Amino acid sequence: MAVTHVVSFSWVEGTTPETVEGIRSALQEWIDRREGLDGLVSWIGGPDLGLADGNAHFAVSATFTDQTAYERYRDHPEHRRIIAEQIAPLIASRSAVQFSHS
Amino acid sequence: MAVTHVVSFSWVEGTTPETVEGIRSALQEWIDRREGLDGLVSWIGGPDLGLADGNAHFAVSATFTDQTAYERYRDHPEHRRIIAEQIAPLIASRSAVQFSHS
Repeated sequence: MAVTHVVSFSWVEGTTPETVEGIRSALQEWIDRREGLDGLVSWIGGPDLGLADGNAHFAVSATFTDQTAYERYRDHPEHRRIIAEQIAPLIASRSAVQFSHS
Repeated sequence: MAVTHVVSFSWVEGTTPETVEGIRSALQEWIDRREGLDGLVSWIGGPDLGLADGNAHFAVSATFTDQTAYERYRDHPEHRRIIAEQIAPLIASRSAVQFSHS
């Protein structure tokens, strides 16, 4: 079974679009290298379009061949570095789910 | 630009796996009919696998050719019916984002 990871964030007040674009591009560049990411099927992410009141601010949806591939992504050193240095300090709230599907 | 909608839910206490499977299958059957869903590229959803503490309980990730196709999905009468009758009464918290991507 494939596994998809979805996560949405709201940022602390004062977080600028430029900072968020720095996060998105750091993640995208890491993903695009594909190093140590065997089993990654697709990865997309970006800032909320502002279509609905009450939305969170940023989301990622990433699909993997299986749970092991998801865990490889989750635990990848470059992922942990981007989270620790660029994402974690700005998180006001976070909601994540991993689910399996055909 | 394509638009992806991600949403995660936590359910009120006492919500059973059987009830959640009823929600998932109602959504899946509606999606599989594809009626009135022009521009829907992909739809996946399901209950959290329990890999991480603090996760939400259920998520959907759906991709559309453009914003208009997303809005067609969002406002589809069968979607509104499933939300009103099966989902809304059980929501403890909800986090949604729509974002554009290539």
